[in-house]
Amino acid sequence: MSFDQALPLQSGGTLAPYQLTYETYGSLNAKRDNAVLICHALNASHHVAGVYPGQEKSEGWWDNMIGPGKPVDTNRFFVIGVNNLGSCFGSTGPMHVNPLTGRIYGADFPVVTVEDWVDAQARLVQALGIEQLAAVMGGSLGGMQALSWSLQYPERIRHAVVIASAPNLNAENIAFNEVARRAIVTDPDFHGGHFYAHEVVPHRGLRIARMLGHITYLSDDVMNSKFGRKLQSGEAFKYSTQDIEFQIESYLRYQGEKFSEYFDANTYLLITRALDYFDPAAAYQGNLQAALARAKAHFLMVSFTTDWRFTPARSREMVEALVANQRQVSYAEIDAPHGHDAFLLEDPRYLSLVRAYFERIAKEDLA
Amino acid sequence: MSFDQALPLQSGGTLAPYQLTYETYGSLNAKRDNAVLICHALNASHHVAGVYPGQEKSEGWWDNMIGPGKPVDTNRFFVIGVNNLGSCFGSTGPMHVNPLTGRIYGADFPVVTVEDWVDAQARLVQALGIEQLAAVMGGSLGGMQALSWSLQYPERIRHAVVIASAPNLNAENIAFNEVARRAIVTDPDFHGGHFYAHEVVPHRGLRIARMLGHITYLSDDVMNSKFGRKLQSGEAFKYSTQDIEFQIESYLRYQGEKFSEYFDANTYLLITRALDYFDPAAAYQGNLQAALARAKAHFLMVSFTTDWRFTPARSREMVEALVANQRQVSYAEIDAPHGHDAFLLEDPRYLSLVRAYFERIAKEDLA
Repeated sequence: MSFDQALPLQSGGTLAPYQLTYETYGSLNAKRDNAVLICHALNASHHVAGVYPGQEKSEGWWDNMIGPGKPVDTNRFFVIGVNNLGSCFGSTGPMHVNPLTGRIYGADFPVVTVEDWVDAQARLVQALGIEQLAAVMGGSLGGMQALSWSLQYPERIRHAVVIASAPNLNAENIAFNEVARRAIVTDPDFHGGHFYAHEVVPHRGLRIARMLGHITYLSDDVMNSKFGRKLQSGEAFKYSTQDIEFQIESYLRYQGEKFSEYFDANTYLLITRALDYFDPAAAYQGNLQAALARAKAHFLMVSFTTDWRFTPARSREMVEALVANQRQVSYAEIDAPHGHDAFLLEDPRYLSLVRAYFERIAKEDLA
Repeated sequence: MSFDQALPLQSGGTLAPYQLTYETYGSLNAKRDNAVLICHALNASHHVAGVYPGQEKSEGWWDNMIGPGKPVDTNRFFVIGVNNLGSCFGSTGPMHVNPLTGRIYGADFPVVTVEDWVDAQARLVQALGIEQLAAVMGGSLGGMQALSWSLQYPERIRHAVVIASAPNLNAENIAFNEVARRAIVTDPDFHGGHFYAHEVVPHRGLRIARMLGHITYLSDDVMNSKFGRKLQSGEAFKYSTQDIEFQIESYLRYQGEKFSEYFDANTYLLITRALDYFDPAAAYQGNLQAALARAKAHFLMVSFTTDWRFTPARSREMVEALVANQRQVSYAEIDAPHGHDAFLLEDPRYLSLVRAYFERIAKEDLA
């Protein structure tokens, strides 16, 4: 959908015109009160569920969660997936031409924040004729958007589902982002963010960024059980510093390679920065309880025991701040081995928990 | 000290001739039984204690631990610091000329292992006229060398002091090493490891490697208390993906910059590979108890609660394997906030523990 009215940004700048790419699943009911907005994390998109006709491997990134008969049941709910501004899957981003200059934005694309994304999503939802969302839902950075919806548009959201998320990044989280950004920015093929004009891509930096990211998505446990010290080939070392010896090396290189083929380097910078900046308590001298006082939604929060990126303790901070505000919160800490990635995986307890929550919404709200 | 006799390496190759740079502190006693060998970790050297005349800031890397009146008291012990083969502080390494070809080794420097280092150290100790060491001591990778001494030369070492170490790297440890290596190897200035001839240094890769390393040396807690989300300047965001916003970013960039000015890229590859390869239990189908049965030394092992690189659990694996072999082991788990770095820092409980252990050695062994 195209928007001509300028979007004011937290940075003080504006963006106009812009395009938001979205998909919907299921049908909006007559009362227009069964819409669920799904917010994506770093490398995902508007394509949250289903498969494109004729493209077997085009499964949506949250296809185990969303669809007919699934936990978020599209037979009952009208689900909206949207690609965020600055991303690289259709919505306006750094690889597009800035209509004001006729040049590709590149590094000049304005720095966008979680709050800016939510503002843009709110306009889209409005344009779809939806006054109030049944729920906004997301994991990780997507959970931050769901939380921010409850603060920016408290009247327009009945439920916020915040999974494997945090009220802000801590120093270690920022540190990992910064290493990834430096790897990209210092790749000679980055050309100050204007690599498009040089017809190159900073593959080296993107690979490093993704390899590093992957380590933080997995738990120590799952890495040890999946890879351990297993060798890539044979039983003997090659005694080489550059060849692959261990399976974990092969796995990471493969993930890095794949990612660098499809992801935009400027998008990586923008999205990690949006993560760094998010901190609703900052305007309240760090008092999260005061920051969340505006929220009116009911909350479902889920964390995973082995997630060391956004630990259960970070979810509990949000739960406690909401409870202190006498908000209705359901909270579950799922004992899962998979680390941060668990929010995307098959886990019967996790999926049935979300299913039960949405069944309750359907029963109580959509009666 | 120069060695002409070829050193057989685990890889099947040999190294000859080679040079080992070392320093000593204190005096060897008449019975030649008060010598303590200190093994270094990734980026340290033979210069473990004291200050070079006229160079104020040249403090040894373990100067709080070793010296006159210090926990390892050089009034009583004869301490030897040695720079390992393949390192970049004097001993033969990839930046030196291969006498067989007349060219700088670069990436052709043979891959060395913890066992190779220990073999080279044993020759040095022999050349110094020492039949048996009172102790071998090290932290992190240095601890692996102390452990390996007890297995390779069980008759030549009375005590092994193994601090903040592990019996091998796990998948996550290897993964972090691999990301660092890829950052170096894919830096265009690396030139396949022969950058010396091009008169450049792969600074970009070294910076990334060091930034990443630093994250793993610190605990989440200490990062949050030292840096948290504090901004580098002022109270407002700059809204930039490339400028420094947070203090943690500035700290990491500084550490990366400093490191890339003095450390050799090929050495980084070699030393991280030696870490990856070390695994004394591998020859015993992963049975650590069987692997450590050869050890005759007495052990002091120390771990730190917030060390997530080499967790206390990894130290306990070694302790349990030694106890199962009925070896004498003292073990302390120090409640310290500093993460892996704690082994290098001032911590009264830690330092007095080591002091007490060495006082006992002096009293019982050197009587």
